[in-house]
Order: sequence, then structure tokens, then C-alpha cells
Amino acid sequence: MQFTAEQIAALLNGTVEGDPSVAVSQLAKIEEAGPGSLSFLANPKYEQYLYGTNASIVIINKDQLLASAVKATLIRVENAYSAFSVLLEAYNTIKLDKSGIEQPCFIHPSAQIGENVYIGAFAYIGPGVKLGDKSKVYPNTYIGDNAVIGKNVTLFAGVKVYFDCVLQDNVIVHSGAVIGSDGFGFAPTTDGNYQKIAQIGNVILEENVEVGSNTTIDRATMGSTIIRKGAKIDNLVQIAHNVEVGANTVIAGQAGVSGSTKIGENVMIAGQVGLAGHLSIANGTQLSAKTGVNSSIKEEGKAWGGTPYMPYKDYLRAHSKLRQLPDLDKKVYELEKIINELKNK
Amino acid sequence: MQFTAEQIAALLNGTVEGDPSVAVSQLAKIEEAGPGSLSFLANPKYEQYLYGTNASIVIINKDQLLASAVKATLIRVENAYSAFSVLLEAYNTIKLDKSGIEQPCFIHPSAQIGENVYIGAFAYIGPGVKLGDKSKVYPNTYIGDNAVIGKNVTLFAGVKVYFDCVLQDNVIVHSGAVIGSDGFGFAPTTDGNYQKIAQIGNVILEENVEVGSNTTIDRATMGSTIIRKGAKIDNLVQIAHNVEVGANTVIAGQAGVSGSTKIGENVMIAGQVGLAGHLSIANGTQLSAKTGVNSSIKEEGKAWGGTPYMPYKDYLRAHSKLRQLPDLDKKVYELEKIINELKNK
Amino acid sequence: MQFTAEQIAALLNGTVEGDPSVAVSQLAKIEEAGPGSLSFLANPKYEQYLYGTNASIVIINKDQLLASAVKATLIRVENAYSAFSVLLEAYNTIKLDKSGIEQPCFIHPSAQIGENVYIGAFAYIGPGVKLGDKSKVYPNTYIGDNAVIGKNVTLFAGVKVYFDCVLQDNVIVHSGAVIGSDGFGFAPTTDGNYQKIAQIGNVILEENVEVGSNTTIDRATMGSTIIRKGAKIDNLVQIAHNVEVGANTVIAGQAGVSGSTKIGENVMIAGQVGLAGHLSIANGTQLSAKTGVNSSIKEEGKAWGGTPYMPYKDYLRAHSKLRQLPDLDKKVYELEKIINELKNK
Repeated sequence: MQFTAEQIAALLNGTVEGDPSVAVSQLAKIEEAGPGSLSFLANPKYEQYLYGTNASIVIINKDQLLASAVKATLIRVENAYSAFSVLLEAYNTIKLDKSGIEQPCFIHPSAQIGENVYIGAFAYIGPGVKLGDKSKVYPNTYIGDNAVIGKNVTLFAGVKVYFDCVLQDNVIVHSGAVIGSDGFGFAPTTDGNYQKIAQIGNVILEENVEVGSNTTIDRATMGSTIIRKGAKIDNLVQIAHNVEVGANTVIAGQAGVSGSTKIGENVMIAGQVGLAGHLSIANGTQLSAKTGVNSSIKEEGKAWGGTPYMPYKDYLRAHSKLRQLPDLDKKVYELEKIINELKNK
Repeated sequence: MQFTAEQIAALLNGTVEGDPSVAVSQLAKIEEAGPGSLSFLANPKYEQYLYGTNASIVIINKDQLLASAVKATLIRVENAYSAFSVLLEAYNTIKLDKSGIEQPCFIHPSAQIGENVYIGAFAYIGPGVKLGDKSKVYPNTYIGDNAVIGKNVTLFAGVKVYFDCVLQDNVIVHSGAVIGSDGFGFAPTTDGNYQKIAQIGNVILEENVEVGSNTTIDRATMGSTIIRKGAKIDNLVQIAHNVEVGANTVIAGQAGVSGSTKIGENVMIAGQVGLAGHLSIANGTQLSAKTGVNSSIKEEGKAWGGTPYMPYKDYLRAHSKLRQLPDLDKKVYELEKIINELKNK
Repeated sequence: MQFTAEQIAALLNGTVEGDPSVAVSQLAKIEEAGPGSLSFLANPKYEQYLYGTNASIVIINKDQLLASAVKATLIRVENAYSAFSVLLEAYNTIKLDKSGIEQPCFIHPSAQIGENVYIGAFAYIGPGVKLGDKSKVYPNTYIGDNAVIGKNVTLFAGVKVYFDCVLQDNVIVHSGAVIGSDGFGFAPTTDGNYQKIAQIGNVILEENVEVGSNTTIDRATMGSTIIRKGAKIDNLVQIAHNVEVGANTVIAGQAGVSGSTKIGENVMIAGQVGLAGHLSIANGTQLSAKTGVNSSIKEEGKAWGGTPYMPYKDYLRAHSKLRQLPDLDKKVYELEKIINELKNK
């Protein structure tokens, strides 16, 4: 598909400088763009690229001054970054515009399927499942018995949703993520073995939650493991049974949350962080990469680092000294000798 | 399905206090239970909830004293916790009671399929595979050539078992786990590239092993990567080639074990722990979360922490001082000044 | 299949000592081998096993001296290790020799399928996909719209490749790996929620790249996430959007690379390492297990450890002192008392 500068300007409520009939068919970074590409300039740091870019069209801020001639057709808008985001989103919507039911797929006769859904080949929709309108179930995806999937949900290829789980409207789950596998619960027996504790709860993903690829979210022993609305979870994250993740909390790749821990709202958890079980983490907490949290955090909005964790500033100060610890050790040893000499005088 | 207090009491060998005909259809925590729910009280800490619960039936210990009136029908048993576990297990068995062969699935003519199995749609059972009686292969699961799957094994949706691997009786593997992918073995060549070393061994999961979702267990270069009977492995764990995990060892989420390391029996490995390759870890070892083990552990039954690892108590003591390291550094600097003054006198 | 000592010697350009007609059907380690097995001796450390092995044939170095009688037939070659690697590879090639198209699978009419490919049952090949000659797509694998797969590529069972991604010749991807899921990009909105930033780029895996099981490689926001030729990535690794991994770089299990970081060539990254975003890592850098890298590394070929990272030797020295930190702290406290006494005199 091709769009002209004039069409795009109309969409973005912008004004054209240059040839309004020039057409583009793809989006690209200003420094990499070729002919037929649309790009944008929002960050002044990149202004240099504007004058040499091969992009056919560049979206710029209304008030952008030009230091020299520009080959590309310009579209001036209120906010170039937002405008480009709108186009990215539109582009993506077209890319991901799937509908209809591909064959072969498996839809149990007792499942209730909404309107305008996409169900890919080899998708499995089990007994009693409810699938809401406009939802997309990509190929090789599995939805277990009695799971409830809301409207406009996207399950990419190979997602697995175990029985009884609930995914509310607009949830997005990326490939290979597993929602609702058994919590890791075993009771030691007198003969040194372990007996499995049945995990009969479920997982609830509230509205607008996004889950990354190959992330695992275990079902509760009883009750629900809950991810509150708007929370965003990256790839390869482990969420154990009975955890609750607060609204709009963000969890980066390879972080792990142990059983029954309750994370507040608007918390930011960086990559490879680990949280022990049965903790409570205050709203707005920030955990830097690889932090290990072994006790509850009660103060809101503070930043932490290290394992075991400490205030982020202390973490930076302490670890910057760590490298010199052998020198400090040596110095103390030498001071001790001098002191002993002084004492003996 | 509904069960009356009388039926449940008979099953648990308990006695009813209250209406024996009251019926329940689900299990719930005592603090969250609604009408129609069955709950239990085992931990005295939760006694308060007994008097206000909306559960229709509560299982309690035989000798539980009542501080005030209870609305729910009570079933008194020897051990409320064990009794409830029995019910959880029964509930789960009903939930997971699948049998028959769904279509379309792929069963190679040379595969040997036992009695009373469940094979879900889009499951793939390759040439020469043996699948034991009562085993369940959920949808979208792959079993490669000549793999041997014992009796009463459960492979949840989307599990992948590579060729030649062996899963003994009662093994449970959760969704997305990969059993038998190639070990990470490459030999540097003189031109700076890497040549793949063929990985021709297999993986053996002995009886009663459970493997969590999206965990990966690599096949041996030659011989077998072995998980001994009763070992429990959580989600997103990496087990490299030629590793051996001892009987009844427990490995929590996101831990990783490097190639050829031998882990003893009844070892407990917490989340995000890492073990280097070619190590030997003594029976009963306990590794706290995020521990990094870079040498063999010979003493049995000891607890360790930190990276590189040290005795757990030393780890706690050392890291509690770490935060004050900058202050210590400053103090030594000041003492040095004083000492120099003293010396110069 | 069986091969005689004579046939194997001819293949390896070696000479037979013993019965040239003895036949073997499998490969095994010298210390575990039984009758009918072929083994090898390259490391002098294992020479003892040569005299007792039950292997029917053992490959040894041309110049290997024998301290006593050997039961097995010997094949002498220039380099026993290399010769055995050749056999391992040959064995593996036979094991993985799949071809043809199994049914049911899904091949979109607009897809272009090369010669001599293997497409397993329940594999999904989307609209516009190009699949090169001799490539193997195992069962339950998903290839999204317009993805381009080169020649002799192997996608094991359950791999997912999102739309528009490019996998060049000889790439191997293990089960459950996800190539091209959305980068983790969200812009905070004024009401405290997050808006998804559309991810419209792709992933390029260059020639001879190998990707481990359940590893995730996110597509670029715009442009490409690139893994350069010959790079080897282990299991459960997270590669974020817009990352570039240099040629022949090796990344071990559970390591993670944050967005837009550029890793040089021949870098070695051990298990559970984490790299922050927007960094540049010099060629030949070596990162030990669990290292946390939070700034760019400019010097080539150096080794690092710790979190935050420091030179590897400093890391070892500092951490070896860490355990004694409480003692050091106590000693300084005592020295302080002595100094104060001295001062007061």
C-alpha cells in the first residue's frame, strides 16, 4: 500500500512543505530511510540527518527551524513523535489485521465464539471456552477447558492458556507464554519424597495487560494469581502461584516473583530481578537490574538495588567501594602494625 | 458436581457438626469462601475467619475449640490440612480427567500406544514412540522419534520431547517445556568460527519427576542427561547437557545448571541460582536465591549464599556490612591521618 | 544400521588393528561403552579405560602407545578427537534426516517452498513466506507472514517466527524459541497508564546462527534486531529489540541483553549475565557468569565479572575479601579504640 504526503498530512492534521503527491510505502528511521520511506524528526540531536536523509517524507515539529535545504517533503505537525506513533500503530494494525477461521483448527462444540474473531490453523479451543468479539487466536495456540477470553484479545502463535483462566479485554499475550500452569507446591513426606499439592485456582489477566514471549504465570493453589489492569510483563518472566501484580506495574525480562508476593501499582522492576515469596511491595517502588528482594518494602516510590537489596544510592556507593576492598584490607593490616609499634613504645 | 457434608465426612472419616445435607460445589480459602464453598481451618492464625466465613462447610481439626458460634457446617477430622489436600487432589483429578484421541492428531504407524491414553488434537507422536497406559498427551505436544513415555505420564499442551528421550512412569511436564534439545557444544575452528559438536545422547526423566513450564533440559553429548526419581523442577529452569540431578532434589524457577554438573539427592536450589559446569554438589545442600556456585560442594547438608558462594551465615553477615563499606572506608582514612600525626610526634 | 571397522577406517582414512569385520551400531563414551559400540580415546587421562572397555571398536591417535593388551578392535587415525567428531556428525545427520511433507500441515498458497524440504504435521507456513531448499520445519512450528527462511535451515518442533523476520542459510533454531515478538516498548500517558509503542521492525538471523530452546529474540521497533553470522545463543536467553550481536559471539543460558545494545564479535557471555540497554561491547570481551554490565566496554578482549561489573581479576580479589568484611569491620572498630587511647595519652 502507498500513501501520499497529502493523505498522511490530512490524517495527522499537518501541513505539507514540498510535493504533496510524493508517495511512501514504509516507515524507517531518519538515518536509515531510503526512497519511498516515511520518517520523522522529534529529537533535536538527530537534526543533522534531516538534511541528508533519503526518506521521501519526513514528519517534523511545527516550529522546527531549517538550517539548510531539505530534499524530502516535510509534514509539519504539533508533535512529531506522537504523530509518528499514530502512524506506527496504524501500520501495525494493518500488519496484524487477521480474521476468519483457518482449517484445520479444533473448536469444541461447547465453546462460545464471538464475532469477527481470528482463529488460526491448529489452534485448540477447549470445552466451555468463551472467546470474545474481535479476539485473535494465532496458530498452534491452546485454550484449555472453561477459560474465559475477553474482547479484542490477541494470543500470538503457540500461547498456552490452562483451564479456568480468565483474560479480560484487550489483553495481548506473546508466543510461547504459559498462563495457568501448576504452582510449584509440594509437601515433604515422611519417607523423604515430595507429594504434589493440587493447584486448583486460576490466573486472571485484567484489561490491557501485555505478557511477553515464553513468560510463565502459574495458577493459584486456591483463588487466583492476578495481574491487574494495564500491567506490562516482558519475556521469560516467572510469576509464581498466588502472586498479585498491581495496575500499571512494569516487569522487565527474566525477572521472577515467588509465590504469594503482592506487588503494588506503578512499580518498575528491571531485568533479572528476583523477589522472595510472601512479600508486599509498595506502590511506585523501583528495583534496578538483578536486585534481590528478601523482605517487604513498605515505603512508596523508592529506588533499590543489590542482593540483598538496599537503597539504590547506597547500593551504588557500596559497590563502587567493593573493588577497592582488598586495598582497604591491606591498609588496615598496615595500620595495625604501626599501631602496635606505637603502643609498644 | 455437588457433594453433601455427609458424603464428604464419609470420604474423610470425619464427623459432621451442623446440617449434614448442606451441599458444596467448589473449594475456597476460608477468608474468601462464599456460599456453596468448602473450606478448611488448619493454622490457628486463621481461626478468626472461622466465625465469619460464608463457606457452607469448613473442615477443622478434631480438637479445635470454638470461641463463638459458627454459621458453617463443620466436619471434624484428625488432620484438617491433610484432609483438605486429599480433597484438592480429588478435585484436580476430576478437572484433569481426559481420555480418548482427539482429531486431527498425528500418530506414526510405528508408534506403540498404550491403553486408556488421552491424545489431544494436533499432538504429534513420531515413528517408533512408545506411549504407556493412562498417559495424557495434551494438544500441540510433540514427541520425537523413538522416545519412550511410561505409564500415567502427563505432557501438558505444547511440550516438546526430542527423539530418543525417556520419560518414566508418573512424570508430569508442563506446557512449553523442552526435553532433549541439543547441548550447547561448539569447538572453535582455526578461522575463528565455531563448529557444532553433534549431541547424540538423550534425556532420562525418572519416575515421579515434575518439570515446570518452559523449562529446558538438554540432551547429553553422549550418554544421558538424567533427572533422578522424584526430583521437582520449576518453570524456566535451564539444565545443560550431561547434568545429573539427584532423587528428590528441588530446583526453583529460573535456576540454571551448566554442563556435566552432578547434583546430589534432596538438594534444595532456590530461584535464579546458577551452577558452573563439571561440579559435584553434595546431598542435602541448600542454595539460597541467586547464589552463584563456581566450585564443587563436598560437605552434605549445608546452606550457602552469595556469588561466588560462601556459607549462608557468612553471606548474611558480610552483605549486611556491605552497605556500610563506604563509611568503613572513610573511617580508615581518618584513622590513618590520626596515626600519621601520632607517629610524627 | 551397522558399520564394520573396515568401513569406518576407510571413512576416516585410518588403519585397523584387530578384527576388521567387527560391527558397531552406536557411539558411546569409552567408560560406558558396551559390545556393539564405537568409542574413542583422545585425552591421555582416560587411557586406563582403553584396557578394560567393552566397546567393540575404539578410535585412537596414530601414535598412541599401548601399556597392555586391548580387547577392542582399534582404528588408528591422525587425530582421534576430530575423527570421532566427524562420526558424531554423520550419526546425527542420519538421526535428523527428515524429508517430505506430513499431513495435516498449513501452507498458504502464496508461500514459496524450496526443494527437498521437510515440513512436519501441524506446521504453519503463512502468506508470502519463502522457505529455502533442504530446510526442515518440524511439527507444530509457526512461520508468520512474509518471513524469509534460507537454505538448509532447521526449525525444531514448536519454534515461532513472527512476520517479516529473516533467517539466513544454515540457521538452527531449537524448540520453543520465539523470533520476532514485540519489543518491550511503552510510553507513559498522562493518566498513569502505558501506551504500547508499535514494533514494526524485524529480526535477522544471519548464516550459521544457532538459537537454543525457549530463547526469545524481539523484533526491532524500526529497522532490525540482528544476530550476525556464526553467533551461538543458548537456551532461555533474552535478546531485546534493536540489539545487535556480533559474528561468532557466544551467549550462554539465561543471559539477557537489553534494548539497542550492540555486542561486538567473538564476545563470550556466560550464563545469567545481564547487559543494560544502549551499550556498546567491544570485540572479544569475556563476561563471567552472572556479571551485570551497566556501561559500555571499549577495550577489546578483556575479562569482567561482578555486578556492577569490574575487571575479572579485581572481581575475584574483591569477592574473596567480602566474606571477611565483618572481621575487617570489627578490627577497625578495635583499632579505633586503641588509637583514641593513644591520642588521649
